[in-house]
Amino acid sequence: MSDIPYKIYLEESEMPKQWYNVRADMKKKPAPILNPGTLQPVTLQELSGIFCEELAKQELDDTTPYFDIPAEIRDFYKMYRPSPLVRAYCLEKKLDTPAHIYYKFEGNNTSGSHKLNSAIAQAYYAKKQGLKGVTTETGAGQWGTALSMACSYFDLDCQVYMVKVSYEQKPFRREVMRTYGATVTPSPSMNTEVGRRINAEFPGTTGSLGCAISEAVEAAVSQEGYRYVLGSVLSQVLLHQSVIGLEAKAALDKYGIKADMIIGCAGGGSNLGGLISPFVGEMLRGENQYEIIAVEPASCPSLTRGVYAYDFCDTGKVCPLAKMYTLGSGFIPSANHAGGLRYHGMSSVVSELYDQKLISARSVEQTSVFEAARTFARVEGILPAPESSHAIRVAIDEALKCKETGEAKNIVFGLTGTGYFDMVAYQKFNDGEMSDYIPTDEDLKKSIDMLPKV
Amino acid sequence: MSDIPYKIYLEESEMPKQWYNVRADMKKKPAPILNPGTLQPVTLQELSGIFCEELAKQELDDTTPYFDIPAEIRDFYKMYRPSPLVRAYCLEKKLDTPAHIYYKFEGNNTSGSHKLNSAIAQAYYAKKQGLKGVTTETGAGQWGTALSMACSYFDLDCQVYMVKVSYEQKPFRREVMRTYGATVTPSPSMNTEVGRRINAEFPGTTGSLGCAISEAVEAAVSQEGYRYVLGSVLSQVLLHQSVIGLEAKAALDKYGIKADMIIGCAGGGSNLGGLISPFVGEMLRGENQYEIIAVEPASCPSLTRGVYAYDFCDTGKVCPLAKMYTLGSGFIPSANHAGGLRYHGMSSVVSELYDQKLISARSVEQTSVFEAARTFARVEGILPAPESSHAIRVAIDEALKCKETGEAKNIVFGLTGTGYFDMVAYQKFNDGEMSDYIPTDEDLKKSIDMLPKV
Repeated sequence: MSDIPYKIYLEESEMPKQWYNVRADMKKKPAPILNPGTLQPVTLQELSGIFCEELAKQELDDTTPYFDIPAEIRDFYKMYRPSPLVRAYCLEKKLDTPAHIYYKFEGNNTSGSHKLNSAIAQAYYAKKQGLKGVTTETGAGQWGTALSMACSYFDLDCQVYMVKVSYEQKPFRREVMRTYGATVTPSPSMNTEVGRRINAEFPGTTGSLGCAISEAVEAAVSQEGYRYVLGSVLSQVLLHQSVIGLEAKAALDKYGIKADMIIGCAGGGSNLGGLISPFVGEMLRGENQYEIIAVEPASCPSLTRGVYAYDFCDTGKVCPLAKMYTLGSGFIPSANHAGGLRYHGMSSVVSELYDQKLISARSVEQTSVFEAARTFARVEGILPAPESSHAIRVAIDEALKCKETGEAKNIVFGLTGTGYFDMVAYQKFNDGEMSDYIPTDEDLKKSIDMLPKV
Repeated sequence: MSDIPYKIYLEESEMPKQWYNVRADMKKKPAPILNPGTLQPVTLQELSGIFCEELAKQELDDTTPYFDIPAEIRDFYKMYRPSPLVRAYCLEKKLDTPAHIYYKFEGNNTSGSHKLNSAIAQAYYAKKQGLKGVTTETGAGQWGTALSMACSYFDLDCQVYMVKVSYEQKPFRREVMRTYGATVTPSPSMNTEVGRRINAEFPGTTGSLGCAISEAVEAAVSQEGYRYVLGSVLSQVLLHQSVIGLEAKAALDKYGIKADMIIGCAGGGSNLGGLISPFVGEMLRGENQYEIIAVEPASCPSLTRGVYAYDFCDTGKVCPLAKMYTLGSGFIPSANHAGGLRYHGMSSVVSELYDQKLISARSVEQTSVFEAARTFARVEGILPAPESSHAIRVAIDEALKCKETGEAKNIVFGLTGTGYFDMVAYQKFNDGEMSDYIPTDEDLKKSIDMLPKV
């Protein structure tokens, strides 16, 4: 064993005091988001009708490199941050690899994932603005849980529209949110116009994330003192999530470790974007080079098989349009896929970095992801979320390549969360009943052909 | 805010290298455990037929104050230890109390509780002895999960007999164990003689911990290369769990904090015994004074309403007898009670400390426990296990007393685990359907009257 501990913890005094906005260092910026009505770049005023004003400002600001993290948010962070950067000694030994593997573990809080980093920021700005509450949607439930915790802390009302099939199949997620005081409504509901319309059109529907977003947005704009909040995709979310990368980099620097490769799973891009931000910043400023890999499911391959175009962020087409790698907002990911990485598009920041070839992407199949998850769990102890396990898969693959070449690369990956609420998927895997799904080119063509003409 | 951080972490180099055996400092020792056949103190040879030899030695040794923690176990500990000692700033603020509240958080590992501290030790000694595997029982599932993880790490076979009603109602716990490679059998099963007998006698029975213990013991002694392991009650388990108290004390000492009061929940006594060991040691050696409170459920009040007598450790009466505070091994705790603190007796070490009035005990009712859990979750973030929440209840009560008296007491409590797999109970509470249960004197008399005549 070397002198590097199993877990590198920063001191509280070493925690980041500012978020880093990677857009400020990009010469070619991500394309502006568009008003879905006018198809013109959305204005601050327009955006402030949906989002809290301070968050709308962050969303539109692509020049300010650093934003101070308010003291109230830093205090909350201190309850579960700094999160450890773990040296995966046991995994290295199991793989018999010369590579040094590190993971930034974001699952050590009740929400079970990194989502809390942005949830607490969004709740803070809502409170500061004097709002009564916020609305949101949740699919798998990580974001809804995180937001419930954040709202409870700031004594804000929290209304969560949960995709009906998840509401019914994940009652425990629902109960965690209720324990934190949130109202959880199965979507489509009879609370909103769009919900009533969808229920009438498709009786017995079990809902979709797109529908839940539309309901949450309607609920926000139709109630005095409410705004809508979102847990991924948006640039403001990536800004808040930069705390992951800043801490990871500080921890590596503390021990003089230079990462060769940084790997993150990518659904909407919040974790990946946050983890890689400060490293990409160094690349953009010409200070350093890193190999960065975004890992997505083969069942929902927006980066590796999507197109780079303007698209709606939601199926209901009420949110602004963003230029992003997308499979089309009409793409319905296979129910076969267990993880939460089922979003049709990708954060416009991550998309632009990918287009500029600053990062690469790889898609992996579900069964091999769960094999990696099991290997990891058995030697490193932590039971990983299916989402996070996509990154584990590629980290293991890369470490095995190092075994062949003899290279002692420093591989860093993001372990975004724990799998305690995903045991139905683990059970399928344990019982040998898990299968893989890869959409055909025709499947993708259908939804891509329906992209808006912008 | 003072200079004390939210979370006090020790460095890896500051982690305990030895476990502390509090029995060594007790002038009046806990009474010896007895062979259930001869009713004579059990010999090392007899005990080594059921337990690993090294563990049997630890069980019988009440004079050696410190046992070296083998390097292999310390390496495993490093994956999730040192666990943080958290200053509950947010809870203090919420309660508006001058008290300083600290909790030692043992839930930051996949088993979700402190049980892993002893599981890894027991698995290590089994491996060292060249065994093929171990057998055990589990009720709520924390111990079974921890043991599965430990056995997976040392590549040992792990056979878990899980109380049938839990096996069916807690499929997620079961799947975590299976993911770690354990065989999980609903008890009573048809694998063992005792299981077959019970199934024949009580068709359709959903099992009990006592029955599962008996099956696990039979499975251990009837297979070549297997031994039985147990997650609480035993003195060896308290020895391993002393790592909790040693770390807590080191963290307090690091910041010059003198605990006034130490609070722990008590089922079989493993967490409480581990947490308080080094503090009690100082009391026994006349170096310091602490107020120590064991918190038990009003539905299973072994310390506050039991008798101090020799009793069987299991309902099947195959294990050695221990002198302990007990409600009688025939006591059936109410199914009404959600938490895992349903054991009829109490560790003989904790019992003897209680009898010597070195520690006190308090019983609390379920609904008030969940109220405390919710209050805690909402301000401190962590969703606590029902078991741990018994300690939270009393910590809050004591902090509120400080508010009245104006005393700035240092209150330390053990937060043994997380509640992710207890959402059925939380749901009951959220729905207002939780109730309390206190056994009548007559209920208790029935099982106490059936104590063995020793």
